[in-house]
Amino acid sequence: RYTFGELKVPVDKYYGAQTVRSTMNFKIGGPSERMPIQVIKAFGILKRAAAEVNKDYGLDPRLADAIVQAADEVAAGKLDDHFPLVVWQTGSGTQSNMNVNEVISNRAIEILGGKLGSKDPVHPNDHVNKSQSSNDTFPTAMHIAAAKEVHEVLLPGLQHLHDALHAKAVEFKDIIKIGRTHTQDAVPLSLGQEFGGYVQQVKYSIERVKTAMPRIYELAAGGTAVGTGLNTRIGFAEKVAATVASLTGLPFVTAPNKFEALAAHDALVELSGALNTVAVSMMKIANDIRFLGSGPRSGLGELCLPENEPGSSIMPGKVNPTQCEAMTMVAAQVMGNNVAVTIGGSNGHFELNVFKPMMIKNVLNSARLLGDASVSFTDNCVVGIEANIDRINKLMNESLMLVTALNPHIGYDKAAKIAKTAHKEGGNLKETAIKLGYLTAEEFDAWVKPHEMLGPK
Amino acid sequence: RYTFGELKVPVDKYYGAQTVRSTMNFKIGGPSERMPIQVIKAFGILKRAAAEVNKDYGLDPRLADAIVQAADEVAAGKLDDHFPLVVWQTGSGTQSNMNVNEVISNRAIEILGGKLGSKDPVHPNDHVNKSQSSNDTFPTAMHIAAAKEVHEVLLPGLQHLHDALHAKAVEFKDIIKIGRTHTQDAVPLSLGQEFGGYVQQVKYSIERVKTAMPRIYELAAGGTAVGTGLNTRIGFAEKVAATVASLTGLPFVTAPNKFEALAAHDALVELSGALNTVAVSMMKIANDIRFLGSGPRSGLGELCLPENEPGSSIMPGKVNPTQCEAMTMVAAQVMGNNVAVTIGGSNGHFELNVFKPMMIKNVLNSARLLGDASVSFTDNCVVGIEANIDRINKLMNESLMLVTALNPHIGYDKAAKIAKTAHKEGGNLKETAIKLGYLTAEEFDAWVKPHEMLGPK
Amino acid sequence: RYTFGELKVPVDKYYGAQTVRSTMNFKIGGPSERMPIQVIKAFGILKRAAAEVNKDYGLDPRLADAIVQAADEVAAGKLDDHFPLVVWQTGSGTQSNMNVNEVISNRAIEILGGKLGSKDPVHPNDHVNKSQSSNDTFPTAMHIAAAKEVHEVLLPGLQHLHDALHAKAVEFKDIIKIGRTHTQDAVPLSLGQEFGGYVQQVKYSIERVKTAMPRIYELAAGGTAVGTGLNTRIGFAEKVAATVASLTGLPFVTAPNKFEALAAHDALVELSGALNTVAVSMMKIANDIRFLGSGPRSGLGELCLPENEPGSSIMPGKVNPTQCEAMTMVAAQVMGNNVAVTIGGSNGHFELNVFKPMMIKNVLNSARLLGDASVSFTDNCVVGIEANIDRINKLMNESLMLVTALNPHIGYDKAAKIAKTAHKEGGNLKETAIKLGYLTAEEFDAWVKPHEMLGPK
Amino acid sequence: RYTFGELKVPVDKYYGAQTVRSTMNFKIGGPSERMPIQVIKAFGILKRAAAEVNKDYGLDPRLADAIVQAADEVAAGKLDDHFPLVVWQTGSGTQSNMNVNEVISNRAIEILGGKLGSKDPVHPNDHVNKSQSSNDTFPTAMHIAAAKEVHEVLLPGLQHLHDALHAKAVEFKDIIKIGRTHTQDAVPLSLGQEFGGYVQQVKYSIERVKTAMPRIYELAAGGTAVGTGLNTRIGFAEKVAATVASLTGLPFVTAPNKFEALAAHDALVELSGALNTVAVSMMKIANDIRFLGSGPRSGLGELCLPENEPGSSIMPGKVNPTQCEAMTMVAAQVMGNNVAVTIGGSNGHFELNVFKPMMIKNVLNSARLLGDASVSFTDNCVVGIEANIDRINKLMNESLMLVTALNPHIGYDKAAKIAKTAHKEGGNLKETAIKLGYLTAEEFDAWVKPHEMLGPK
Repeated sequence: RYTFGELKVPVDKYYGAQTVRSTMNFKIGGPSERMPIQVIKAFGILKRAAAEVNKDYGLDPRLADAIVQAADEVAAGKLDDHFPLVVWQTGSGTQSNMNVNEVISNRAIEILGGKLGSKDPVHPNDHVNKSQSSNDTFPTAMHIAAAKEVHEVLLPGLQHLHDALHAKAVEFKDIIKIGRTHTQDAVPLSLGQEFGGYVQQVKYSIERVKTAMPRIYELAAGGTAVGTGLNTRIGFAEKVAATVASLTGLPFVTAPNKFEALAAHDALVELSGALNTVAVSMMKIANDIRFLGSGPRSGLGELCLPENEPGSSIMPGKVNPTQCEAMTMVAAQVMGNNVAVTIGGSNGHFELNVFKPMMIKNVLNSARLLGDASVSFTDNCVVGIEANIDRINKLMNESLMLVTALNPHIGYDKAAKIAKTAHKEGGNLKETAIKLGYLTAEEFDAWVKPHEMLGPK
Repeated sequence: RYTFGELKVPVDKYYGAQTVRSTMNFKIGGPSERMPIQVIKAFGILKRAAAEVNKDYGLDPRLADAIVQAADEVAAGKLDDHFPLVVWQTGSGTQSNMNVNEVISNRAIEILGGKLGSKDPVHPNDHVNKSQSSNDTFPTAMHIAAAKEVHEVLLPGLQHLHDALHAKAVEFKDIIKIGRTHTQDAVPLSLGQEFGGYVQQVKYSIERVKTAMPRIYELAAGGTAVGTGLNTRIGFAEKVAATVASLTGLPFVTAPNKFEALAAHDALVELSGALNTVAVSMMKIANDIRFLGSGPRSGLGELCLPENEPGSSIMPGKVNPTQCEAMTMVAAQVMGNNVAVTIGGSNGHFELNVFKPMMIKNVLNSARLLGDASVSFTDNCVVGIEANIDRINKLMNESLMLVTALNPHIGYDKAAKIAKTAHKEGGNLKETAIKLGYLTAEEFDAWVKPHEMLGPK
Repeated sequence: RYTFGELKVPVDKYYGAQTVRSTMNFKIGGPSERMPIQVIKAFGILKRAAAEVNKDYGLDPRLADAIVQAADEVAAGKLDDHFPLVVWQTGSGTQSNMNVNEVISNRAIEILGGKLGSKDPVHPNDHVNKSQSSNDTFPTAMHIAAAKEVHEVLLPGLQHLHDALHAKAVEFKDIIKIGRTHTQDAVPLSLGQEFGGYVQQVKYSIERVKTAMPRIYELAAGGTAVGTGLNTRIGFAEKVAATVASLTGLPFVTAPNKFEALAAHDALVELSGALNTVAVSMMKIANDIRFLGSGPRSGLGELCLPENEPGSSIMPGKVNPTQCEAMTMVAAQVMGNNVAVTIGGSNGHFELNVFKPMMIKNVLNSARLLGDASVSFTDNCVVGIEANIDRINKLMNESLMLVTALNPHIGYDKAAKIAKTAHKEGGNLKETAIKLGYLTAEEFDAWVKPHEMLGPK
Repeated sequence: RYTFGELKVPVDKYYGAQTVRSTMNFKIGGPSERMPIQVIKAFGILKRAAAEVNKDYGLDPRLADAIVQAADEVAAGKLDDHFPLVVWQTGSGTQSNMNVNEVISNRAIEILGGKLGSKDPVHPNDHVNKSQSSNDTFPTAMHIAAAKEVHEVLLPGLQHLHDALHAKAVEFKDIIKIGRTHTQDAVPLSLGQEFGGYVQQVKYSIERVKTAMPRIYELAAGGTAVGTGLNTRIGFAEKVAATVASLTGLPFVTAPNKFEALAAHDALVELSGALNTVAVSMMKIANDIRFLGSGPRSGLGELCLPENEPGSSIMPGKVNPTQCEAMTMVAAQVMGNNVAVTIGGSNGHFELNVFKPMMIKNVLNSARLLGDASVSFTDNCVVGIEANIDRINKLMNESLMLVTALNPHIGYDKAAKIAKTAHKEGGNLKETAIKLGYLTAEEFDAWVKPHEMLGPK
């Protein structure tokens, strides 16, 4: 289309020389390492908001309106092909900010009938980036992108999982089963109670993510180069935040301290920490479910998991807990991502943290993976889980710890004798107790009632 | 003193056979790896609370009162020598629970004039551990210990640091200095603004820790073996939590879901995540301060840090930023601890997580180190920081970016010419501008005013 | 094209029903989360090798040859569009193995003039997967992919960086500069020595990666379902490894213990640990270079880094160390990836680790990012680094520690007096020493020779 | 005893003012956070070696010999009470180096009949620290300590575990059991083969640690302040390394590049990475063993683990896999430690890394914990493991996958029909096959032979 210096810009793209130069200088990782598209879309929202506020402060309405229209197209994902840059670029994300400025500028020029690449009448810096700096726009886009991903993907996914687990907890509330501590047999609980623990974990997962959000809602916009707000107007920051809030329906506000908002990204580290805790919960739940569903003959076998893929052509009944596996892999990834975010967050210097693209990439990745995996795990596994009642009852009845219930009636020593004898001889409690002459069959049935062992008295 | 089976128990110790056996079976790591004493003291509080509630439910008042007295001594740290077990034991902490039961039992027996080791009249299991299980007492002690460490060490330490940084931000509010982004020269800000960013980080550090606490205040006590509360009485859980709250002055409540409280320790992972975020903030602040204080001749030299240790006998003025170094080492440790806690938290199985001692060790270590280091860093570094005004002014005045202020007066092109020429020739802006004939000395002084570049207009 | 059950398979794709089903069951993360193409290509190599060996053991040569041809196309990247599955699937990678089997089968059928989807005459399981199981093929593909990425991207990248740094160390060998310890001024060294430290780090980086490779060269092929080699022929494992070695030019061998090779991926954890150590080295080097190049006026300013992007339109001379930033972001990512790999590696159960796709994704990502970033950093930064001799000399000459050289001549006390006075008054050593009357200008020049302070005597 | 400035030094301690000052300035973490005693002992070895070499270069033999004697006492652990400093001090470990210098100086003065604190005739800096700097001695002590811990604790522990697992693999070689992939039933292998996988993991653990050692054997001694070796004599570095090698019996050499040896501790990161991989192996092994030993009634129950602690007073046969739990907790800690070491290693600046004490603390902790836990796990668990043959056979015989063996005889379709029917009806293969009329009992017994499914044919 046009050239800038010696750089050739593809004729079918809206971006310009700064974008092209970055593609040449940062050949790191390839297409799969591109700046997350959510960041680009968030930039679209920010650029629109800035244009509206700039119009209030005197920007030519014709230009402002064209920028708004172009920015909307970016936000709507209509121009995704025009953002080729990878994450591994300037640590401030400057080049992606310029990529956005170039694309919006050229698209706005096109809308206004101008010549692409002319920077006239819409200049990428003077108009699209007006009152802004990469140093405050990139963190703003990071927060918008993170908040949207959390609200659009993660929280709905977790809620979906929560509701499905809760339904199972209710469905299973009367199924009494053996408990396991240290992976070993223990006293009974209901399967509903066991699932109730998972429900609580997911409920708290949602709560944890939400408690991290207030600091994500704080936007750096208006801080410009170092946080002072040089070259902006009083009120710009607040108005931009309000406009973004209005556009997204999320409670964004201007950051109370712009220096912190540029130089540190503790808010992302905090959110990543919440995601890490969610991952910990997911690992526990998915691990339990695959072990409880292990078998069909040689595992614990208390749950039947849905068979989603053709099992081995030889061995019917072999249901691989593939959704649990995807979920636990996601959990491990999120834990690793959290370390990357932590390291990036800790290495800011002076007025600017320059691990921004890496940090937001990992936070978005964690949020997306956890959200998607929650839905997949729910729809393809949790909702189809069935209790293997026969197996649960068999294990329950064979259990030696029900002997606990005899203590008040025949005393600890005799109860222990029964249990030890049964363990040694492989017998069950009832037979052994009767054989030892400590009680009758009727007494055993009257005294040993697992369903009365499920709570305090 | 006495023997149990073939085990020899030291005559001068209150603990018994189960404790001795654990010291034999777990020779891992040596004395520095002992169960944190804060956990033992927390057990003291719990055991006292349980005894009081058990008395309400019928435990012989004479025994209960002796248990209360002995437990108080444990809580007060009077019996610290009687807890020899290491962290690397049963993952449920059962042996430490028994260590506590044995010590309290024997001390209570002693109080009541009985014979040590006789388990009469105060039995470690039947009386001290009444209505309890290791599975609910250990997590309860973990939460009590964590909450106390946070409130007694971490939060006061952070507040102390916050206040000192805030005082410096106020003291430095009128000192205008060059900003640095990408570690490179940028537009100015005040030193007070720079420190204000640190203040905000510490303020949010405090907030982050506090938002993690509600779930730490939830106590597992009353869940007993698997979370059902088997062998407890209705109301026991709530009363114990209320008593612990009363004893500690912290808002403990009974956990709404005991299954979650035993099988998962997401609350500790969450708190550890908050500590991790605090560590990230500390790394940034301490790193900045050591670089801003680097020199005395060949560094940035904007800050003068207090000289705490004899500098090199050869080179006066070499002040090693040792407090920054201790703080950044602590930060790295806390980040590592967080990964250990994360891994432990994710690997619970069924009704019990068995990484309990490791998890609480790391959380307590992180809280203590951050709290202590904050105080040390404050008292031995922050309060003594002085601004090197001459150096700050010199760098400020030599800076090329002040040229920005000329844009509205002589236009971008001439301003750029000035800056480029000055950079190339090594001159300063004013001389260069005059030499180029773009303005007079008076005009330069009138137009280039760094103190007007510190905010929006 | 054809349907299997109710599944619709795109008519322009070689894959079949199992692949389609996986795309439906695992909607996690989107296209950027696809199974790394390197794994697919490695599968191409493996499937070719297996077909050749199977031909030796009796597979119809016509079928074997068609499989070889189709597998070659997979290995050559000609069929990349036919592998839509994401990483977040079965933890054994079974579905990707089947994706490969389906694509090769259909392509081979096409070559032989058959009907796509007919499984005739080339069956995906019976022929393409003959003597194989996902459980041994996926780990084999992981090792082939990792070894190739290390040899084709990582090691050349590191060597490239090493050579450039070495050239700079030689170029800078006579430039004497101030040393810095604790970020504070210290005794001198040459800039060549300083870069020599970096050279050593990269040299060892290469060595570390190489020492991790022997266990990567071990292939699981021949272990089939659980490591026993059920359904293979004696010699199959060895012949496949030899064929893969021949095809790749890398010293692959059959794993001495197939049980370990399926159930654990310690070899990948080990390699990831080596990459983590490389990342640590890179972080140090890139950090140093950006600080040494900080300025232009208010930083350390000893190095001039190449200006790759248009600097700020206002401030000439502001060179952002963007390549350092990309490198340090990569380093942080690799450190996070290592934690993900570690967690995945530790969570294998019984005869199979089911974190395979996640593990290899992270290892390949780390290798690729480090390799690419090394080249980018070298070409766009290291080779263009220039020493700012004037600045280096100025700092060197202003330094107070050169006083050390006077100790043998005038004694420690007088030397210290000189240094302390100079520091207090802001003077230089020579003037101060003369003013104090301890020596003459000639003596100072004779005794204080920084270039004699660069080594032992 | 004596005072330095206003500092009071305890009369019963050999240390001096610099040590006392550090205890005042760094009140972080308390006694359990002391500099690992292994570092202090390593300093003893180094200081002895330096004194011997200094004697060669002219140090008064009377002083040198006294230093040697005092240093030997430090190395032998006779003066452990004289090293009160914590890890959280100067990041160069300077204060611990001075602590050692002070203690050796005073002890040598005492040996020579002088007055403690007089620095006469043995000066802590001039004599004990002669030709040394904290900057080269601390890294030297780190490497000596790490190498000794690896050789004295870790490698013997791993070898001990290896041998015990190998013995079990041999003992169990003829026990055929069901395999498990995805935690689900799979084709059989022998229990010996399963344990053989663990043996291989431990064998490679040893190999991994050993391959990291060559760079640990490199000593920084002789580099002094910044790596140049200023104030040392040519040959000093080599002689000190040779002497340390002689004293320890380990192949220490002088580091080929002292700049790298002071400014980076990649060698410790590398070793930590090896320990991390060992931890991954340990987690897998210990996890498997606790699950295989789960029960006694409701778990997998294939192994009987030794009962080390009194089981629940109620439930005989409940053997908690406490040694597995200690081991897995250790593994998690080592993984966390590795992150701390990684972060510390990556944050060195210019000529000195100042995360030294934190790094070595974590490396030593990991080595010790893994070594101790290996011994504990071996002696208290592995050697006592028994196969539960009845249970293993029962699961084996009930398994549906043995049907695989029928394929060659009756064809895939009929075999599948048998398996599906058996799964649906809960029957066993043999009965079902006969009932379906596909074969006779004799044929079944002749064709289905699990022991022929354990390898290639």
